[in-house]
Amino acid sequence: MNLSKRFLVKPGKKVRLKDRDPEDSAGYGKKDRAKVEKLTEQNIRRLDELQYLLYAENRRSLLIVLQAMDAAGKDGTIRHVIRGLNPQGCTVTSFKKPSDEELDHDFLWRIHKAVPNKGDIGIFNRSHYEDVLVVRVHELVPKDVWAARYEQINRFEELLAENNVVIVKFFLHISKDEQLERFQDRLKDKDKHWKISPSDFGERKYWKEYQRAYEDALEKCSTKHAPWYVIPSNRKWFRNLAVSQILVETLESLQMSFPKPAFDISKIKVE
Amino acid sequence: MNLSKRFLVKPGKKVRLKDRDPEDSAGYGKKDRAKVEKLTEQNIRRLDELQYLLYAENRRSLLIVLQAMDAAGKDGTIRHVIRGLNPQGCTVTSFKKPSDEELDHDFLWRIHKAVPNKGDIGIFNRSHYEDVLVVRVHELVPKDVWAARYEQINRFEELLAENNVVIVKFFLHISKDEQLERFQDRLKDKDKHWKISPSDFGERKYWKEYQRAYEDALEKCSTKHAPWYVIPSNRKWFRNLAVSQILVETLESLQMSFPKPAFDISKIKVE
Repeated sequence: MNLSKRFLVKPGKKVRLKDRDPEDSAGYGKKDRAKVEKLTEQNIRRLDELQYLLYAENRRSLLIVLQAMDAAGKDGTIRHVIRGLNPQGCTVTSFKKPSDEELDHDFLWRIHKAVPNKGDIGIFNRSHYEDVLVVRVHELVPKDVWAARYEQINRFEELLAENNVVIVKFFLHISKDEQLERFQDRLKDKDKHWKISPSDFGERKYWKEYQRAYEDALEKCSTKHAPWYVIPSNRKWFRNLAVSQILVETLESLQMSFPKPAFDISKIKVE
Repeated sequence: MNLSKRFLVKPGKKVRLKDRDPEDSAGYGKKDRAKVEKLTEQNIRRLDELQYLLYAENRRSLLIVLQAMDAAGKDGTIRHVIRGLNPQGCTVTSFKKPSDEELDHDFLWRIHKAVPNKGDIGIFNRSHYEDVLVVRVHELVPKDVWAARYEQINRFEELLAENNVVIVKFFLHISKDEQLERFQDRLKDKDKHWKISPSDFGERKYWKEYQRAYEDALEKCSTKHAPWYVIPSNRKWFRNLAVSQILVETLESLQMSFPKPAFDISKIKVE
């Protein structure tokens, strides 16, 4: 099954998150969990081969953007899907509250610095999209400033794509109830207490505003050169399958091959 | 068996690489290979737990330095041992020929920039030690310049250690014959041709000079706060065991624990 097509936000189409079921698992039920985990493992092994080709080619890079509400599984996706990759040639950048130096520049400055090298895979845990999400919900800048950013983001991503950066953006979609359950689990598990910051829970009050901000970002910024995918993420095992499979489908579509050496191998002698 | 002790370069002791057998596998024979691979897997799973604690603590970082002759397995060690870690909180930096900007600074400038964040693990694939290895062998700077660097390196590493960077340095030790065999394998395998650069083979002429430069670096720069380990690496399966185990032993010696939250968890309500 082609999951890229199923979860793609078609450029120019209206997005209503209410119409996208976070429980969707493309026909797989709970009883299929072991099977799905096996498929995910296969995808991860295939990703390893594809990463090796990307690295050998040294011509293009892959940029993976992860966005989601708290507890939707950004860290878990990295832990389960990305860990299969070779850490050499793979960088994860977590974008937190901007530093003073970062705030002294335009919002894409710190993003541009973190774009992966040729041959590499870069994962953004949060990204420039925060500048039209948390910034919009909490009115950290005036409306005309954030409203201009969708088009600025599109032009920036187009620039990257034209320079051989392959971009894939995932929104991990969970329900408000699922988030509540996961927060409660964290409160129960002593080994997870260090992770808790009371302010995270406070953001739940703005759930609707965030969903609306996400809908706009997905709608305005899903483009041919930098597509958004909405991944149903209430079921972690399915989320991992969907993300790993879309990554495989994306890299396979590049039809990569090993570069030929620039000199005659048969003439080399080693002693 | 405590492999840290076995392979440590004792601070202040003379180092003769000839006296260290690159075939050594601490008593494990070829027939034990499956068993050793299982032990390595166990170490990697344990490393995952320890990395999580390091990250939760957010107080110290781990810096792993990898140095070796070509084809000795720096990339392979990263691929097999480090890949088990969570890529979030783990960065690999490959130090290549310095750029013009880097050459416009002292030799530790680019190194300092790449030191891992608190809570993170950083792997250096080659390092500042190249400045007393390739630079010395090819006389890229005058002798009095490189000769002063051992002490500069020690002071720099001491600074890091005093600021909660835990440093572990591995020299992957192979024999000249083993390198020849691995180079010949690369020439035979079409999928590896892209990796070949004829100049690598040329460096074999300087084998003795490199071994001498390594002996000096190991001898002068193995310190209590930044020890060197000489890992016998002719047998890849044993190399992976030794590196993974010394990493486990190092992290366990820190006796880390989950930090307590700074507020009363029982008072938090989520709705």
